Amino acid sequence: MPHTKCNCIVAQSGGPTAAINASLAGVIQGVFCSETFDTVYGSINGILGILNQKIMNLSEISRNKPHFIETLKTSPAMYLGSCRYKLPDYKEDDKPYRDIFHFFETRNIQAFFYIGGNDSMDTVMKLGHYGKRIGSPVSIIGIPKTIDNDLAVTDHTPGYGSAAKFVASSLLEIAHDTFIYALKSVTIVEIMGRDAGWLTAASALARNNYNAAPHLIYLPEVPFSKTTFLADVNRLLTTHNNVIVAVSEGIRDENGDYISATAASADTFGHSQLSGTGKALEYMIKEQIGIKVRSIELNVLQRCASHTASLTDLNESFQLGCKAVEGAEQGETMCMLTMHRTSQHPYCVSIHFSSVDDIANQTKVIPREWINEAGNDITPALHDYMLPLIQGEPDLKYQDGLPVYLPIDHLL
Amino acid sequence: MPHTKCNCIVAQSGGPTAAINASLAGVIQGVFCSETFDTVYGSINGILGILNQKIMNLSEISRNKPHFIETLKTSPAMYLGSCRYKLPDYKEDDKPYRDIFHFFETRNIQAFFYIGGNDSMDTVMKLGHYGKRIGSPVSIIGIPKTIDNDLAVTDHTPGYGSAAKFVASSLLEIAHDTFIYALKSVTIVEIMGRDAGWLTAASALARNNYNAAPHLIYLPEVPFSKTTFLADVNRLLTTHNNVIVAVSEGIRDENGDYISATAASADTFGHSQLSGTGKALEYMIKEQIGIKVRSIELNVLQRCASHTASLTDLNESFQLGCKAVEGAEQGETMCMLTMHRTSQHPYCVSIHFSSVDDIANQTKVIPREWINEAGNDITPALHDYMLPLIQGEPDLKYQDGLPVYLPIDHLL
Repeated sequence: MPHTKCNCIVAQSGGPTAAINASLAGVIQGVFCSETFDTVYGSINGILGILNQKIMNLSEISRNKPHFIETLKTSPAMYLGSCRYKLPDYKEDDKPYRDIFHFFETRNIQAFFYIGGNDSMDTVMKLGHYGKRIGSPVSIIGIPKTIDNDLAVTDHTPGYGSAAKFVASSLLEIAHDTFIYALKSVTIVEIMGRDAGWLTAASALARNNYNAAPHLIYLPEVPFSKTTFLADVNRLLTTHNNVIVAVSEGIRDENGDYISATAASADTFGHSQLSGTGKALEYMIKEQIGIKVRSIELNVLQRCASHTASLTDLNESFQLGCKAVEGAEQGETMCMLTMHRTSQHPYCVSIHFSSVDDIANQTKVIPREWINEAGNDITPALHDYMLPLIQGEPDLKYQDGLPVYLPIDHLL
Repeated sequence: MPHTKCNCIVAQSGGPTAAINASLAGVIQGVFCSETFDTVYGSINGILGILNQKIMNLSEISRNKPHFIETLKTSPAMYLGSCRYKLPDYKEDDKPYRDIFHFFETRNIQAFFYIGGNDSMDTVMKLGHYGKRIGSPVSIIGIPKTIDNDLAVTDHTPGYGSAAKFVASSLLEIAHDTFIYALKSVTIVEIMGRDAGWLTAASALARNNYNAAPHLIYLPEVPFSKTTFLADVNRLLTTHNNVIVAVSEGIRDENGDYISATAASADTFGHSQLSGTGKALEYMIKEQIGIKVRSIELNVLQRCASHTASLTDLNESFQLGCKAVEGAEQGETMCMLTMHRTSQHPYCVSIHFSSVDDIANQTKVIPREWINEAGNDITPALHDYMLPLIQGEPDLKYQDGLPVYLPIDHLL
């Protein structure tokens, strides 16, 4: 460990979550408590900020702005902005790598923290391997986040619990909204998740002692059959007035083709259009059953609804940020922080550093045994897995009737 | 006032809001405090409950269930269910009228409270006129609710403030979600409101010292021009990376035709489909500007999101319920409770009983002077009108990570 302090830098990448700023807040807090690191810089718009020299001094900002860290912890999306940039293979083009490691040198940076999902872990892996090759001492550490909960090795991912809480509470409220009419109807709720059904599965948490909705859950892990779907709905309509269906945007048929109203649709302006999975199921019901049907797409609200975040999620995300700084102090590199569930009752996780090579570019889907045999519902084991992740509500400040979030004018 | 106590009955009708149960809670509370009324009955699924003999004893339930009134106050949609039933003209068919007033007699009912919007006030008016004709002493009183805020005479309607708070906070969160990418994009947010733009206008409350979104607001009160819309967006794209547009589902062109992607669209299954207004605007951008564009429909979430209700709205709705009982004691009938803003700073309303004849089947739209000249934004006067209505957050109870609402299994 050097006698004079060195610096570090953090960036965020991929899609927004309600918890990704909590991890950033954790990194900043970790640096405040660190004897190794002096200043933590922030790279604007992911790794692109380093390449384009768009850098903030987060230590200075958080010292000067009152309540910065606590407000950051509960603010949606990325305070540092995001990118979808993928590093080239350094054997083919090492220019960005040379620029990035040169930047590290000029600022005396000894650790780079990348908060993100699958694609971001690809960047962590590539930078880590390049750094090793050139003998760089810089720690390259990934901090997970994704509402999709599809990262390998870790028990779950930061951001998932908050999105799951929004999905479950919205489903419960949609059930209240739907059950008021004594008319037969079907409601389709489309939930995010292209390859893994974790977030759609969270809709089951809306069930309680009076609400059985969603009555059907369709996940990308099981091939979708239109015939079975219509039979499922018809069967339920014999005993229920209002049938509510949760469906992942990523369901595919036996041939692996997405179920979405994609083809030759043309609107008033004559364009071909792509509609969503919820709409596709809505049309199937309309056409084949001919009953009142509505589809609801939760859309981006499910990933940015910080006003109903999970406190467990925010706290864990914050802890991972702090822990990442400790890891860098201890020389960890080419790794991602992972959570391991050490106890279910009471719920408890331990934090580890796992090799990013085992994580990058992998997708963790729901194990088949956590989905019922018919492929239209989850099992109690998956319910028990999810339940602790949505617990607790952050104490948000409100001003003029709205939650107070951290200004993001530096991104505009 | 009779020496022995009489009874009363309450029903809910129309579309859900986050505050309609607060008015029901107010009626029940009002009856508890009343020297005139003994039991308050609830009619299931609006006026249909009386016709079909589906009646609950709300006094008994609320005495026996702990925290019934306070949980009811913060529960979404209708505890008593809803209907879309319209009474016939009694001169053509008085059967339902005779049934209803016969029911009143058999249960010693001296007051009927109908919590609803425009259509429900039509029922109040018709029952009131029929009652007057037959010399019935039963008070027929309307208690307003609608997220659309389009009832005449009253300053605003219960339910609007909570929906407005959800719309504004969602817009703010969508802005955070959108601004993270340093890429040009347009986001369209479709908000409810077929004839009046009040709820879409509430999106403007998301603006603050760092967020100027929504940058454009299109309301049903002003004819929509595709050419002007595209020019508006193009102009903003020269100075902004991410343009956010709030649009009412009810916008129409100069000929009065709805702007929606209605026409000959056909999905994979070969059906003609009707898409929404947001989608129509999305397609216009895609086709004419060719930039990254996304549309988000807030859908039913905006009317049932009790987890982010406005405390001001819930308190006023509760007060109207209590006041309705007082009005019935004092012989008010054929009226609807209205709020009149007596002061803006501090915000204050007084409650009155206004003739339902002046309210039923009317639609109050936004005055033209509260919309900017270009017809793509609101004025500060409308902002000031809306701001007090979204203030305050209810203290919700949570269990297993979700808000605790009143069970509605009696509707299933």
